[in-house]
Amino acid sequence: MQFQISNWQQLDKTAQQALLERPLQQQSDSLKQAVKQIIRAVRTEGDAALQRFSLEFDKLQSNPLRLSDESQQRLIGSLSDELKTAIQIAYRNIRSFHAAQVPQNIRIETQPGVICELNYSALDQVGLYVPGGSAPLPSTVLMLGVPAQLAGCRRVVLVTPPGQPEAGDIAAEIVYAASLCGITEIYTLGGAQAVAALAYGTETIGKVDKIFGPGNRFVTEAKQQVSQDARGAAIDMPAGPSEVLVIADDTANPVFVAADLLSQAEHGPDSQVVLVSPSEALLVNTISELTRQTALLPRAEIAKKALSNSRLILTPDLATAALVSNQYAPEHLIIQTADDQGLLGKLTNAASIFVGPYTPESAGDYASGTNHVLPTYGYSRNHSSLSLADFYRRYTVQHLTADGMRDLGPTIVKLAKAEGLDAHANAVSFRLAELALHAKISEGNRP
Amino acid sequence: MQFQISNWQQLDKTAQQALLERPLQQQSDSLKQAVKQIIRAVRTEGDAALQRFSLEFDKLQSNPLRLSDESQQRLIGSLSDELKTAIQIAYRNIRSFHAAQVPQNIRIETQPGVICELNYSALDQVGLYVPGGSAPLPSTVLMLGVPAQLAGCRRVVLVTPPGQPEAGDIAAEIVYAASLCGITEIYTLGGAQAVAALAYGTETIGKVDKIFGPGNRFVTEAKQQVSQDARGAAIDMPAGPSEVLVIADDTANPVFVAADLLSQAEHGPDSQVVLVSPSEALLVNTISELTRQTALLPRAEIAKKALSNSRLILTPDLATAALVSNQYAPEHLIIQTADDQGLLGKLTNAASIFVGPYTPESAGDYASGTNHVLPTYGYSRNHSSLSLADFYRRYTVQHLTADGMRDLGPTIVKLAKAEGLDAHANAVSFRLAELALHAKISEGNRP
Ligand SMILES: [Zn+2]
Ligand SMILES: [Zn+2]
Repeated sequence: MQFQISNWQQLDKTAQQALLERPLQQQSDSLKQAVKQIIRAVRTEGDAALQRFSLEFDKLQSNPLRLSDESQQRLIGSLSDELKTAIQIAYRNIRSFHAAQVPQNIRIETQPGVICELNYSALDQVGLYVPGGSAPLPSTVLMLGVPAQLAGCRRVVLVTPPGQPEAGDIAAEIVYAASLCGITEIYTLGGAQAVAALAYGTETIGKVDKIFGPGNRFVTEAKQQVSQDARGAAIDMPAGPSEVLVIADDTANPVFVAADLLSQAEHGPDSQVVLVSPSEALLVNTISELTRQTALLPRAEIAKKALSNSRLILTPDLATAALVSNQYAPEHLIIQTADDQGLLGKLTNAASIFVGPYTPESAGDYASGTNHVLPTYGYSRNHSSLSLADFYRRYTVQHLTADGMRDLGPTIVKLAKAEGLDAHANAVSFRLAELALHAKISEGNRP
Repeated sequence: MQFQISNWQQLDKTAQQALLERPLQQQSDSLKQAVKQIIRAVRTEGDAALQRFSLEFDKLQSNPLRLSDESQQRLIGSLSDELKTAIQIAYRNIRSFHAAQVPQNIRIETQPGVICELNYSALDQVGLYVPGGSAPLPSTVLMLGVPAQLAGCRRVVLVTPPGQPEAGDIAAEIVYAASLCGITEIYTLGGAQAVAALAYGTETIGKVDKIFGPGNRFVTEAKQQVSQDARGAAIDMPAGPSEVLVIADDTANPVFVAADLLSQAEHGPDSQVVLVSPSEALLVNTISELTRQTALLPRAEIAKKALSNSRLILTPDLATAALVSNQYAPEHLIIQTADDQGLLGKLTNAASIFVGPYTPESAGDYASGTNHVLPTYGYSRNHSSLSLADFYRRYTVQHLTADGMRDLGPTIVKLAKAEGLDAHANAVSFRLAELALHAKISEGNRP
């Protein structure tokens, strides 16, 4: 592997920007068209389309779709106690972090007789997409299933592509993690067709209000499309390839730094890996470690591809390293520096920050408690990391007493008139007139 | 005007659904294409494109773009004290309701030595789109500007189409409302070109992170397009025509009910107006009132067009009326019934609920304190009403102590191995090995 260290200070603004530019992720028109057709087929043909796509994409002669209770029990029974315990610990930590996020309804009287509320209501029905592919992802089940459970969504559905460990089945880890989250409605279905089924419903699969979870480019495009349609479903956030930026100084251990970069690199060939440091020694030693550690990895080929696009950036100081990170706006940001708290205050735009030598990204990916569903591809600048709030809808309630209307009414009339909206003004002045009449009548009735 | 009362119970499921169906809002391909070209022009030509569009759409020979401080002072000076006071009262109420929403950072130790934080950070730069058109909308300035001010966004920019009261100028009410919110960066620019300028920046207008506010179909389409691009900007929510659903029983005053329906109807010809009641007398009396009140309105033609699509629905009881509302998922829901609190418990899916005889929609539109930027077109089922939270990004921070890593590390390794991600496991096991070595050394050093 060839690595190149870029000296930030020696680059002009354009070159600096180019260095931090992410590769273009244009969804091709043919992909858009293909997904559009899959969605249309599911909407018009329902289950029949799902069966056809299962045969075409998953090589299943027939897909029972709903994973039976017996299959769920059998799969859970097949799991080692050791792995069950690990999933339980992750579940417990994720649950306690998200339980701390339970929102409080707000009710205030903005002026006498004018009562305004902001209330939270759990989304009624949510769909969780859990990718299949080369390895089962029980961690993603927990990241989506725990907040859905805590929010109290009435119906939580999980879809995941069939095929592991044997055709038509799904991974035991996924089923077990789902069971901890109280999820039993599981469909062996993946791809754009799974997203379409969740968004619009079929004979077997009821439609949901919002779809969460990562997936391949078909899934991403399908989520995008159904979210553009009011009759479709909302989605959690826009997607992009995963990425990490590490800021390290000469006190950092290059073994740890290289391992953290490789954790990101092994996710996929399009993973983005950036190391920023004021220490040339750290950069050089990390490069050696990268070469050494990569050789030992089963997913070395994937990691190498990702590393070939890695950025190793030498900055004059840590303050500049912080600026580089803020400009890049990374999904994951790891800080391994002597004064990490001081640096933390300079950092913005990262979705999830890992502080100190013993805080690898793996901790947050699996078990510390934070959510690993994060905005990437620069979206962390204006989007939030997934949290309990995403499983609620906020709505307002207001009530004006007769006195409240008497006091505030004239102001509303003035503003409505200024905006040229007479009916808005009438809605108030008719009420004020009625109140005035009442007042007169009760005055007249006075003994 | 012709009105027709539909008897809910006499309709089958399909007819019920059809009755509540919203008109299709397909953005035409030609509109999409036109907006795409406007955005491309602004991205490639910058200010020159803005000037060209100002000439084409606003008939301005030259647009100074930035509204000078002198113009702002002059406009503010032209405003009556009475209107200033009304805007101040609205500002105060909106401010106190949104101030109650200031989020708290969360920091918990999910297990000893594993510290997880959920932090809120104000969005750095936000753009507020305020429509021009037939009437100035100072209320929209407050609904967007107050939360931006409270959150503490570093840069808050307002754009609004020029032309009122005279070419190139904008409404004094808008400038005054902006000044209360601390906004002085104002551009006399509207349409898709304003959205493009905010999303990508030009020589004069710096780019922002997120764009808020309502607009015509060009604005809506432009917001949609820039939000699909990671290099563009996030947006507040999907848009659709405004709508109200009123639930009233025989204790409701038909004068008030009709006025509320007309407030919605006068917004635009595509406004949706729905009245649901178990009382035929209330429905009939409201129809008479609608006819009487409409005749007096300056915007009668607009209101009539909207009313021609109105729905008047007779239900067997209030519980069924609640079901109708839940199925429709209205932007605004007004309740005028004897037992409004009892009914409130049955209602879901509405974005903003107005309770009782003295709570017209106008109150929330202008001055009670709640936000009037709301999901419509059925989106309230899975989207939230605009609140202070929309002006922040949430991100997580985590820190594991050496002890925290020692305790949690083995769990992470197990989970990473189960997912087939060896580099993730290495990032932990290399740290555990170092800690074990440390422990040995310090043991060896013991006297
Ligand atoms: Zn990872
Ligand atoms: Zn209104």
